Amino acid sequence: MTCQPEILSFNCPLPSEPTERIQLAHGSGGKQTEMLIRNVFFRYLKSEGLAQGNDAATLSPMPGAAKLILTTDAHAVSPIFYPGGDIGRLAVSGTVNDLLTAGATVNADYPLLITTGFILEEGLLIADLERVLASMRDCAREAGAKIVAGDTKVVEHGKGDSLFITTSGLGWRLPGPFAPDGARARPGDHILISGEIASHGMAVLCARNELGFSSQIRSDNAPLSEIVSALRSAAPGTHVLRDPTRGGLATTLNEIAIQSQVSIEIDETAIPLDPQAAVLCEMLGFDPLYVANEGKMVVVVPPEESPAALQAIRASRYGEKAVKIGEVLERQTAAVLLKTAYGTRRRLEPLSGEMLPRIC
Amino acid sequence: MTCQPEILSFNCPLPSEPTERIQLAHGSGGKQTEMLIRNVFFRYLKSEGLAQGNDAATLSPMPGAAKLILTTDAHAVSPIFYPGGDIGRLAVSGTVNDLLTAGATVNADYPLLITTGFILEEGLLIADLERVLASMRDCAREAGAKIVAGDTKVVEHGKGDSLFITTSGLGWRLPGPFAPDGARARPGDHILISGEIASHGMAVLCARNELGFSSQIRSDNAPLSEIVSALRSAAPGTHVLRDPTRGGLATTLNEIAIQSQVSIEIDETAIPLDPQAAVLCEMLGFDPLYVANEGKMVVVVPPEESPAALQAIRASRYGEKAVKIGEVLERQTAAVLLKTAYGTRRRLEPLSGEMLPRIC
Repeated sequence: MTCQPEILSFNCPLPSEPTERIQLAHGSGGKQTEMLIRNVFFRYLKSEGLAQGNDAATLSPMPGAAKLILTTDAHAVSPIFYPGGDIGRLAVSGTVNDLLTAGATVNADYPLLITTGFILEEGLLIADLERVLASMRDCAREAGAKIVAGDTKVVEHGKGDSLFITTSGLGWRLPGPFAPDGARARPGDHILISGEIASHGMAVLCARNELGFSSQIRSDNAPLSEIVSALRSAAPGTHVLRDPTRGGLATTLNEIAIQSQVSIEIDETAIPLDPQAAVLCEMLGFDPLYVANEGKMVVVVPPEESPAALQAIRASRYGEKAVKIGEVLERQTAAVLLKTAYGTRRRLEPLSGEMLPRIC
Repeated sequence: MTCQPEILSFNCPLPSEPTERIQLAHGSGGKQTEMLIRNVFFRYLKSEGLAQGNDAATLSPMPGAAKLILTTDAHAVSPIFYPGGDIGRLAVSGTVNDLLTAGATVNADYPLLITTGFILEEGLLIADLERVLASMRDCAREAGAKIVAGDTKVVEHGKGDSLFITTSGLGWRLPGPFAPDGARARPGDHILISGEIASHGMAVLCARNELGFSSQIRSDNAPLSEIVSALRSAAPGTHVLRDPTRGGLATTLNEIAIQSQVSIEIDETAIPLDPQAAVLCEMLGFDPLYVANEGKMVVVVPPEESPAALQAIRASRYGEKAVKIGEVLERQTAAVLLKTAYGTRRRLEPLSGEMLPRIC
């Protein structure tokens, strides 16, 4: 039994050009994030075994047996409470969903394991901390996860922002055909989405109270254990799972296209939009394809398993509105094409620059 | 094969009384930290399986086989560069040392695995980030660790403090007698320390340039893989390993006394002090027993293995000045006694309140 990294991951945000200082756009999840990873983080850490791609690292502690899945996420959302969630629910569900994208099993024998590091700003209301902890507890229970270790530091007032939470997750992928990976999309595969997009980013934006109006919009913030467990049974041949968080659906599809070296075409009219988010995006000029989600899964599945996959997702919590939104085309340039409502096609680029900072 | 938590850990800092807001003292690592953990974190997260004690959680994924060790630490040191180290070296060596305290093996087949979450403040010099990343790379190489996953978020200028790093670590404890645990100290055991104490906290304090004078003091910031590997061979019956970081040697010994329900007596004249730190502590009125270390190990070992343990540590990097500083007494009240230079005895309490904030 050895424990050597097999597939490694690094998802983070920084500099597109040799700019001298960190900018907010380096945290957007789009092109500048990608550049910072490549130009700065990789230069130092790649030699240690860090490679890019998936949202979780997959390791083989025992040849032929279960694979170990590791992931980490830093959370710095502002405000820390918003309709539909809070930084605690975000931290736990984000880590759970990243483990799930690598095919982690979740059941009583294999709970997902979570460690959590808190950076608290002096002056934080302890009642607020308690509300966040209760939310983490509830989300972990719902997700089939256990919080097994933690650490906290306190920084002076004005040197933080209420609280930051960094969560790491550990899961197991059991031997078998169910082994989703960002590099496994194949021509002909169907692209499914588990529900309506764009609510999380818009809900956080509204919660900032800077817009001068109120909205009923709620974040989709949720752990997707039930959807992925259902998929494991119904569509074991699933090729890719990816949660379209920072950078939105368009950026996530671009990541898959690049990792798998395929083109993807999605149908604009098929993409389910949160109705409240759609109105708000239109008013403010945001493209919902680039708005963060925190409770959605993109599923790339062979066509023969697509109907069963769709049925399984729809029968699961948070998956009722799942639909097919596109297909993987023949291999060519890695690209994402949007077939518009007018029948034209345009290329969807990954997010460039900063759209909404501090949403996850 | 199942994966159920066996021993779980939570080391963090928060409120001693029902104060309403987080205070700096909640981050000191002493009594107020302990109260916050008990009164706030445990109330919400204990039901999920979180229990206190060690700096790392030990899990049994495969009955009878290697145990999985998990740990996490948030790092918010100010300034981020100081003589002898920086926040990157601190983050990697701190996580490595916590894994080692649970008996993690480190070799080519079993590298320690590290995930890392960055919270970057807008405006951070990218050159500074690069210096930190290079330091993490070098420290990981030295320690036998691999950085396998990461994430980064960017916060607005004024909402952070240059950068915060949260690292999580995963290691394996192979089957065998070497199974250090904070609860295993036994009457008659010898207490060893791997070298001179008090340099880290004092080095960080000096680096703040608020004292009006300069000092040559350097932090001991180091990964202790070599010491623990040597101990595994030379003293497999080692009962406890613990790195005396936040709260210093006095607080660490109190933690061991409470976990093992024993009294500990240490000899003031035997405790090796960093000479520069000793001078500074005397000038400023600090007690070096409460000053943080970041490259020291407290070793509790049965008397028959004590000479071999001491020899092994002294032959290892960072262990040249190891000495015996005390013994575990017969079981009675869990307490730490200091035999002073004058032959009197006084009780050493854990750190109360805040001494030096933002040192780790």
